Amino acid sequence: MTNPVRLIKVRESIQADNDQRAQVLKSELKAVKTLMINLMSSPGAGKTSLLLQTTGRLKDEHRMAVIEADIDSSVDAERLAASGVEAIQLQTDGFCHLDVMMVTQALDTMDPRAFDIIFLENVGNLVCPAEFATGAALDVMILSVPEGDDKPLKYPLMFSKCEALIVNKIDYLDTPLTDFDLELLEERVRKLNKEIRIFPLSCRTGEGMEAWTGWLAEKTAEHNG
Amino acid sequence: MTNPVRLIKVRESIQADNDQRAQVLKSELKAVKTLMINLMSSPGAGKTSLLLQTTGRLKDEHRMAVIEADIDSSVDAERLAASGVEAIQLQTDGFCHLDVMMVTQALDTMDPRAFDIIFLENVGNLVCPAEFATGAALDVMILSVPEGDDKPLKYPLMFSKCEALIVNKIDYLDTPLTDFDLELLEERVRKLNKEIRIFPLSCRTGEGMEAWTGWLAEKTAEHNG
Repeated sequence: MTNPVRLIKVRESIQADNDQRAQVLKSELKAVKTLMINLMSSPGAGKTSLLLQTTGRLKDEHRMAVIEADIDSSVDAERLAASGVEAIQLQTDGFCHLDVMMVTQALDTMDPRAFDIIFLENVGNLVCPAEFATGAALDVMILSVPEGDDKPLKYPLMFSKCEALIVNKIDYLDTPLTDFDLELLEERVRKLNKEIRIFPLSCRTGEGMEAWTGWLAEKTAEHNG
Repeated sequence: MTNPVRLIKVRESIQADNDQRAQVLKSELKAVKTLMINLMSSPGAGKTSLLLQTTGRLKDEHRMAVIEADIDSSVDAERLAASGVEAIQLQTDGFCHLDVMMVTQALDTMDPRAFDIIFLENVGNLVCPAEFATGAALDVMILSVPEGDDKPLKYPLMFSKCEALIVNKIDYLDTPLTDFDLELLEERVRKLNKEIRIFPLSCRTGEGMEAWTGWLAEKTAEHNG
């Protein structure tokens, strides 16, 4: 059984008070025991694959929904809905990030209390989404091995603001295709963000998924408990 | 012998007339027989690798310079300068794209007439750079195989506005790591942009580089001749 995808065309927040709105939304979601997670990455790093794998593994113990941001399509939301997850598609019509106004427009179409976890799949972009609060309690980013271990040098704000970094596509590490150095990456990331949790994994093979979903389950209990 | 890297911290254009300025700059560069190429992609798709490979292959017949945009580092410009290419680093300080003002600040520090080709390495981002003209005569984008063949569905403007699409990391196609379908990609791209030239290649192995550099040499002759 697949859920229908709700489609919402959003307008960008013009308020200068996005940060303040984000604090309010964060408190409201805390009060109703719903953990909202803002998931960010470059295009093609594996946001939708991670969400498919994660919701598949956590669905017996958690009620989950996904709010998908896409500039001009709904392919990701359809993949998620086909897997049985509640999925809402936000069409950002060219915007390069999500803000609180956009997220609120999606939340207004659902009952957040009906979910333990709501994932925001932000626009695929390592720059702009790092600058705009969404109201999520946790910011999580994905870096995929083919992108290279130098990305913390180039997109420092993104690495600085996240509670967790998922290093996806670690199955590429065993090939001659890449010279990605996981230790060097960690060293570069720690210079920006000492506390960040790092989860190397492969959405394709499932390797490393349990450390990530275990942490997520803990964080959910902590937030909603 | 390595060239020193010049470092310029740019301010964003606040003019609404970016498009008009772009036309003026384009004409000026045409008049002095300098082809400027705006190279765009996601983070880690291979912009700097492509520029290293391309300038290495064309350096006997062409005088080339690279203007590098990076939010907060100069690692790419240093790699290029170490290879003997004239490299100018623009630090965009968080901006998510290049515009004409920023490019002009770089051009003001050099003599464009001294170069047959000037490459702009735009910020790694498939969204914002597509929206801002730079004054370049050609827009070229890179999509790398690990990003997936669905990207034209998600970032249509970028695919619509480019004269050439480089599909990098085709050495990944021969592995079980990806289900990337080159034919399907081409079909999706052609729906957005019938005329676009598509160059599948690998900067790592060199496969496919000649078709790209051949086209580039032709375009340079056409523009500067």
